[in-house]
Amino acid sequence: MSSKQNIEVTSGQVHPTKYGIILFPGFQLLDAFGPLDALSVLSTRVKLDPLIIIAETLDPVYSGSAQSTWNRAGSDFGASVVPTHTFETVPDDLEVLLVPGGSGAVQPGADDRRVEFIKKTYPKLKYLITICNGVGLAAQAGVLDGKRATADKAIWVRTTSLGPSVNWVKTARWVADGNIWTSSGVSAGLDVTLGWIAEVFGEETAREVANVQEYEWKNDANWDVFGFIWGDGM
Amino acid sequence: MSSKQNIEVTSGQVHPTKYGIILFPGFQLLDAFGPLDALSVLSTRVKLDPLIIIAETLDPVYSGSAQSTWNRAGSDFGASVVPTHTFETVPDDLEVLLVPGGSGAVQPGADDRRVEFIKKTYPKLKYLITICNGVGLAAQAGVLDGKRATADKAIWVRTTSLGPSVNWVKTARWVADGNIWTSSGVSAGLDVTLGWIAEVFGEETAREVANVQEYEWKNDANWDVFGFIWGDGM
Repeated sequence: MSSKQNIEVTSGQVHPTKYGIILFPGFQLLDAFGPLDALSVLSTRVKLDPLIIIAETLDPVYSGSAQSTWNRAGSDFGASVVPTHTFETVPDDLEVLLVPGGSGAVQPGADDRRVEFIKKTYPKLKYLITICNGVGLAAQAGVLDGKRATADKAIWVRTTSLGPSVNWVKTARWVADGNIWTSSGVSAGLDVTLGWIAEVFGEETAREVANVQEYEWKNDANWDVFGFIWGDGM
Repeated sequence: MSSKQNIEVTSGQVHPTKYGIILFPGFQLLDAFGPLDALSVLSTRVKLDPLIIIAETLDPVYSGSAQSTWNRAGSDFGASVVPTHTFETVPDDLEVLLVPGGSGAVQPGADDRRVEFIKKTYPKLKYLITICNGVGLAAQAGVLDGKRATADKAIWVRTTSLGPSVNWVKTARWVADGNIWTSSGVSAGLDVTLGWIAEVFGEETAREVANVQEYEWKNDANWDVFGFIWGDGM
């Protein structure tokens, strides 16, 4: 929204300006729009290129989960978001890729188009950020092998089983290993994005973004109570 | 996402099932999708009707704020969401209306289509929930006159000046007065929605939704540090 403070981005550094996010049917709204809101506030302080929204086709992507076995009530409740690019048309110079989770990300196979895209694109990226069980897509792509990562706690077993060669960290709000940042469930996407902003744009910028969002950001990657709350997870 | 607990909604009660949200160019992403994510998790436990997304036309609504004077960097960074209804076609039996804020809600006049819609629709609603400076639209509609309400803290003066007959409460995460629930800025939309779910569906249900979101929900309407952080606001 606004601010009375002034942000000085460390001069001379070249910061990423090209951000993209993969969307798919059954994506979790807050997984996507918590991080995108933080980046959108950042974009009022630092010039960023238009957001790239990536999907299988250019048809609107619906978040609803009526088909999911977890949708016990069978409601068809969601919103449709318009992609800007397909997997084939994403610019080669994309710098930061976000991967949300949701009911539509529970059982990716190695031949999943999203997994293929991550595998093909990761070597060109500056950063990869996953939210909730979106990490399962990155794990299937093999880009997390030998790396530390975390995942949502409610379906911990199911998500982490997608990456047998990943060093999973259960008690974490988020984990950064090299240029891959992974987060715990849903709202933790806000925290990992703010943590990433602090790393790349400085703590003061991250704190201002959080204040605009009126979000009580802890800036503590190790803070997590949900592993305890959810126990072993499913 | 999922849960091992079982929710028993108080039997015999009739709970709202018809939810709508007003979107407009320059809406704040998290204002809208924090609450909608909470309702979407709720919808996997309690049968809700499909979400009604209301806008001026059926064209996708873009969240970007490139035209806002607050966008100091001038970035054009946002996402487009597809409306399901226009102001004219919203079903008469809509029960719960959400109104987000954002740069596009800063200066509504009394003749604003959104203000007119709120004024016309409010008497038929069971609940009205506003997020951030979305409360300014409700204030202009006069539905808050003589009622207690809160608003975002960063632009407190500007937003509250839209409702000279409202009893503004500054130190609050959210305020409920009658059937109108208003929240503080951006991420506070999560808290007011969870508070509203607790009121209508029970505390246990709200807590489960928060746990699925891995959101450390305080369930304390009076908790607020951002009035202090932002001082008098703009």
